[in-house]
Amino acid sequence: MSSAQSFKQLPHKLLVIPGPIEVSDDVLFANAHPSMSHVSPDFIPVFGDCIRMTRKVLFTKNGQPFLIAGSGTLGWDQVSANLIEPGDDVLVLHSGYFGDSFADCLTTYGANVDQVKAEIGAAVAIPEIEKALKSKKYKAVTFTHVDTSTGVLSDAKAVASIVRRVSPETLVVLDGVCSVASEEIQMDDWDIDVVLTASQKGLGVPPGLSILVASERAIKTFESRQKPVTSYYASWKKWLPIMKAYENGNPAYFATPPVNLIYAYQASLKSITESSVSLEERFKLHREASKKVKAAAQELGFKQVPLDPDFAANGMTALYYPDGLAASDILPRLVKRDIVVAGGLHALIKDKYFRIGHMGITAVESQRGDIEKVIDSLKDTLAEAKAAK
Amino acid sequence: MSSAQSFKQLPHKLLVIPGPIEVSDDVLFANAHPSMSHVSPDFIPVFGDCIRMTRKVLFTKNGQPFLIAGSGTLGWDQVSANLIEPGDDVLVLHSGYFGDSFADCLTTYGANVDQVKAEIGAAVAIPEIEKALKSKKYKAVTFTHVDTSTGVLSDAKAVASIVRRVSPETLVVLDGVCSVASEEIQMDDWDIDVVLTASQKGLGVPPGLSILVASERAIKTFESRQKPVTSYYASWKKWLPIMKAYENGNPAYFATPPVNLIYAYQASLKSITESSVSLEERFKLHREASKKVKAAAQELGFKQVPLDPDFAANGMTALYYPDGLAASDILPRLVKRDIVVAGGLHALIKDKYFRIGHMGITAVESQRGDIEKVIDSLKDTLAEAKAAK
Repeated sequence: MSSAQSFKQLPHKLLVIPGPIEVSDDVLFANAHPSMSHVSPDFIPVFGDCIRMTRKVLFTKNGQPFLIAGSGTLGWDQVSANLIEPGDDVLVLHSGYFGDSFADCLTTYGANVDQVKAEIGAAVAIPEIEKALKSKKYKAVTFTHVDTSTGVLSDAKAVASIVRRVSPETLVVLDGVCSVASEEIQMDDWDIDVVLTASQKGLGVPPGLSILVASERAIKTFESRQKPVTSYYASWKKWLPIMKAYENGNPAYFATPPVNLIYAYQASLKSITESSVSLEERFKLHREASKKVKAAAQELGFKQVPLDPDFAANGMTALYYPDGLAASDILPRLVKRDIVVAGGLHALIKDKYFRIGHMGITAVESQRGDIEKVIDSLKDTLAEAKAAK
Repeated sequence: MSSAQSFKQLPHKLLVIPGPIEVSDDVLFANAHPSMSHVSPDFIPVFGDCIRMTRKVLFTKNGQPFLIAGSGTLGWDQVSANLIEPGDDVLVLHSGYFGDSFADCLTTYGANVDQVKAEIGAAVAIPEIEKALKSKKYKAVTFTHVDTSTGVLSDAKAVASIVRRVSPETLVVLDGVCSVASEEIQMDDWDIDVVLTASQKGLGVPPGLSILVASERAIKTFESRQKPVTSYYASWKKWLPIMKAYENGNPAYFATPPVNLIYAYQASLKSITESSVSLEERFKLHREASKKVKAAAQELGFKQVPLDPDFAANGMTALYYPDGLAASDILPRLVKRDIVVAGGLHALIKDKYFRIGHMGITAVESQRGDIEKVIDSLKDTLAEAKAAK
């Protein structure tokens, strides 16, 4: 008979891409929970727990979480279909691949999108945002907190603050797919209206769960919209009563939630919000792991994609290949050492760089030795690659 | 160290609702697979396998599967956003709750929907469909193969055949959420254009995967649409190249697939399409299990919701409570016996009936004794409930 104590996941290569990330045995065991009715009195409180703990991770008291089967991308559809009405102006701050994609999604739902694009490796500068905000009244401003394609970290607090100062009614939408639970997000204090993310990055759960939290301002905007919501599956008209029912311990049905992933999410949220490692400590451990990787990479001669160290993510590192070396010199040699990193994603530099993820248990549970393994393997790989030239 | 051989799921109540259903230890163990990159050479062939085996289950040679993180409901959005253009006429055949919901979804995306509603417990009669088809040119006809709210089974072959005869260009859309892998569906032979389903019913996987297969005719309709697709996350413009890439063994990225669920789906598909029990035998075993449950229920005095035995699902049974008894007399007593069935769902008769699921391993693996357990518990429960009055 398997039990949570005896379950150990199969041996496997160390997965250090910027999501999916390594997940704990506890979380995987929860993902193998026996089938449960999605409206049973045993499952409803589990869903309710996940809603409450999601708030904790984002330091929000009254934010409304939505937990829906889907990938992180579904969060963009939720924003576009529920908060934006056809013809609304939206400002997208672009610090990599995911800015274009979010803009594409918004346009699909009829938004008029303006993008302010930073150069590759940079976040959009605050004065640029101020200028754009003064030129037009935007319904919403969106930004990618950590753009997974560049490893650029935007200053979420500063972005929210300039929006609130120049255009107080504009909604601030933070794409936190690659930042929630690995970077600090003070949703209430910084006055952010939407944080959207997915299960498979800092939150340490297998992929398949779209997680979004909407502020009271966002919910009001949604409730006072003039035109009908333009999606069915992503409609908060459908989901809001369901989320409230689950939180209040009542059964409700719109579409079947991903029951096992909810158990897995609960297991991970417990270790994130109720363990001896506080959230503050968790962010600090991510910063420290990140510093170690970045310092070692620098020492080895790798140049980071982010131009300014203050705007580099703490949950991942994006590195250019050294002169004369390419993906084929580095990545297969890392795989040979059982280390799986990710290739490039940003179209303009795709073949020139690679990405290392260090989120969740890889950053927090130092006894695993993941960070050291990554650094040592990178060192050996580089030496071997150079010797082979 | 856990292994596929040693993994046993935790003891739990027998889940016999019309989905999620009981799933095997193999499938749950696959759902606890260590984290894998969604574009790794180890994972891509797994996804490709799932695409190929999905075709087998539906007896289609060239149908195009879409496997996307989401609930079954997302299949309606896929149909509405990709195949229907605002202003198109769609005919919805209504045999229960899910007809109204699919109509609601289609309307959200701008379709003009006509519904032909059968009385509760019946499927829409073929002459009614013929009459509707002759009154207007419809872009698509949708029907719920098994309406989970009533247990009514529509005659998919006959529906497709009348559409093809009267209105050859009209797309035939089969909502197979509660029928795929428990009822026979000959997608090519019957000439059905879309079959949409979810992972947690006959396919025997935890919930969280939207599974849809589109015929060549449907893909042509999609490719020749005049207006842009009206969803981002559900857009086949985004997903079609991804599905083709995965099937051809190449990495591709639009949104992160639910990697663990894909492993679980592969494990279940293998047992469905490659085990000693053929698909034909599987459907026969579902019919036999269904007959046993229905015969026992009849003997005990329960009346079925479906009016005609030929139009009753083989994967579930919907039963009215006997006169003088209510949900509170039956359901808690079944739970006390570790049997979880489902209450009513159809608004007009919600408190008057309950539903038993008998799909997947519950129907196919007779050595589990699930069917006997259900029948015996129903017998004891009824006796106890009557004695308590």
